[in-house]
Amino acid sequence: MVKEKTINHKIVLEARPQGEPKPENFRLVEEAIPSPAEGELLLRTLYLSLDPYMRGRMSEGPSYAPPVALGDVMVGGTVSRIIRSRHPRFQEGELVAGYTGWQEYALSSGDGLTSIGHPEHPSYYLGVLGMTGFTAYAGLLKIGDPKPGETVVVAAASGAVGSVVGQIAKLKGAHVVGIAGGTEKCDFVVKTLGFDNCIDHHAADFATQLVAACPRGIDVYFESVGGKVFEAVFPLLNVGARVPLCGMIARYNDNEPPAGPNQLPSFLREVLTRRLKFQGFIIGDFFKSTFEEFRAQMTEWVSHGQIKVREDFVAGLTNAPQAFIGLLHGKNFGKLIVRVSE
Amino acid sequence: MVKEKTINHKIVLEARPQGEPKPENFRLVEEAIPSPAEGELLLRTLYLSLDPYMRGRMSEGPSYAPPVALGDVMVGGTVSRIIRSRHPRFQEGELVAGYTGWQEYALSSGDGLTSIGHPEHPSYYLGVLGMTGFTAYAGLLKIGDPKPGETVVVAAASGAVGSVVGQIAKLKGAHVVGIAGGTEKCDFVVKTLGFDNCIDHHAADFATQLVAACPRGIDVYFESVGGKVFEAVFPLLNVGARVPLCGMIARYNDNEPPAGPNQLPSFLREVLTRRLKFQGFIIGDFFKSTFEEFRAQMTEWVSHGQIKVREDFVAGLTNAPQAFIGLLHGKNFGKLIVRVSE
Repeated sequence: MVKEKTINHKIVLEARPQGEPKPENFRLVEEAIPSPAEGELLLRTLYLSLDPYMRGRMSEGPSYAPPVALGDVMVGGTVSRIIRSRHPRFQEGELVAGYTGWQEYALSSGDGLTSIGHPEHPSYYLGVLGMTGFTAYAGLLKIGDPKPGETVVVAAASGAVGSVVGQIAKLKGAHVVGIAGGTEKCDFVVKTLGFDNCIDHHAADFATQLVAACPRGIDVYFESVGGKVFEAVFPLLNVGARVPLCGMIARYNDNEPPAGPNQLPSFLREVLTRRLKFQGFIIGDFFKSTFEEFRAQMTEWVSHGQIKVREDFVAGLTNAPQAFIGLLHGKNFGKLIVRVSE
Repeated sequence: MVKEKTINHKIVLEARPQGEPKPENFRLVEEAIPSPAEGELLLRTLYLSLDPYMRGRMSEGPSYAPPVALGDVMVGGTVSRIIRSRHPRFQEGELVAGYTGWQEYALSSGDGLTSIGHPEHPSYYLGVLGMTGFTAYAGLLKIGDPKPGETVVVAAASGAVGSVVGQIAKLKGAHVVGIAGGTEKCDFVVKTLGFDNCIDHHAADFATQLVAACPRGIDVYFESVGGKVFEAVFPLLNVGARVPLCGMIARYNDNEPPAGPNQLPSFLREVLTRRLKFQGFIIGDFFKSTFEEFRAQMTEWVSHGQIKVREDFVAGLTNAPQAFIGLLHGKNFGKLIVRVSE
């Protein structure tokens, strides 16, 4: 018989980072596991998702969501087991997906929780069947809209979003070129995920290789990186190209605007001249219109092996800060997930 | 009885401008009026349209259309009378709209010509019922897509495109704020065109006035100017705002990229954070899908006085270069048209 635990561990935001997040921006807190009131649930976290957007929530200033307050538990998507239910709609023992953050136990009113049954891979609901898969699906199909034979370039191609973007683009008949960091990731992108090509952005002749891999230019660029990858892609964008923007990892940690010249006026002129479309989005924009379609379609693709999944597991909540810092440097290989408890 | 003329005047591109076009970039050429071969037409130009896009055609380098060759007649939209027809589809005396350029007479195979009947205002086919009206219609409705109650800001609000954009936006129920140069233009934009407000971009407190005129932020910005107007608008764009890009007059004449800092990375971050859409377009992109709808709808609006038109006429082809140079400085007031002949 398992002895019931009484201590909850959670990780709170201790200080806002200047530039790159450091371990001292986080603090591990111990407290008694709370008890659910009438209408509440007590959840034990099984899996915690780590994602680049969390860097934005650590800073103040306008973003698409309010920042985490100092001393508050870090935000994050989770898959949890209901261990006590005083809520009529949920049963003890059920698995649910939600946003209960970086902690081992959480109380919930049930708002924002989704029952996921008892799937073979519960953690997929944090990745390919969850936020990152939906980001890939909605951004690629609703903004990028690739046509058969067009060229799609995918940044961070071995990552949680990019790996799915490229595989969907292949299913839609596009020529797909990935960009990733290192030979091992590039091999995976081509051999396992089935992209047509993958360029290592560490290569000295990266930009030249990209030109060679895109002989008909680029029609859709799925941006999530910024920086020098963007600079190499931009000149290759064809007339009428579409650029869904879902992240700018390379710039998340910048404090100062980079030195001149100011490239913005010439950028805007090119957007006009080549009739480009740049569109930022978050999945909330598409939730109502597209989420059901996404989950049905993606579940089918995954179950038939048409979309392959790679996860990068980290064991234990206390390792989350270091894993998150590594994520911003591209150290993960596949969807980064913390296995918090059994 | 009118004596038949024998000399054609045309204006050719003499030299490519460095920065702003100057009179010496153009040359007036006299030649004998050509004779139509079998299957051809001889046209006499009544009206020549002058538009900012012509600046782009004077330069080499990639654009959405090839440059005018040195020594070739300058491109331009025209309304002409057929004075000789050896073409089965066209009758002498008919009025046609086409792109026969900066010249008094032109041969044509009939390709690209549209018969316009005998309207009360033939020159409208160069403006509100032609390229500039279509630019306004397609850019605002197909990219900007304003909803009732949203705020639409229109640069160059008294100009050929902007004046129509704002009036359509009002017909669609938007709150419409124009930007124009000088009190006289702003008065016209509010009192005659019916915009809710118009800000003079020469005013020292221009940016502050713009903030006050847009208390609920900006949902659609119809860009055709760039420069400091864009800089004042950008911070006010709401989450989900749309920016159709159809021109960058303020930067057409730049040779060097402006000094730093480089604002492009922070621009892209804002596009992401606020989920903005920037989309360049030319009317050719929409011709097939939207031109018939446009001409039927716009003809109705104009005939019912729901869209008001102001034209700025210049007399004589020889005055075209100076008028065009003035256009790039905003010296015209209304759609700029050269009355070439009767």
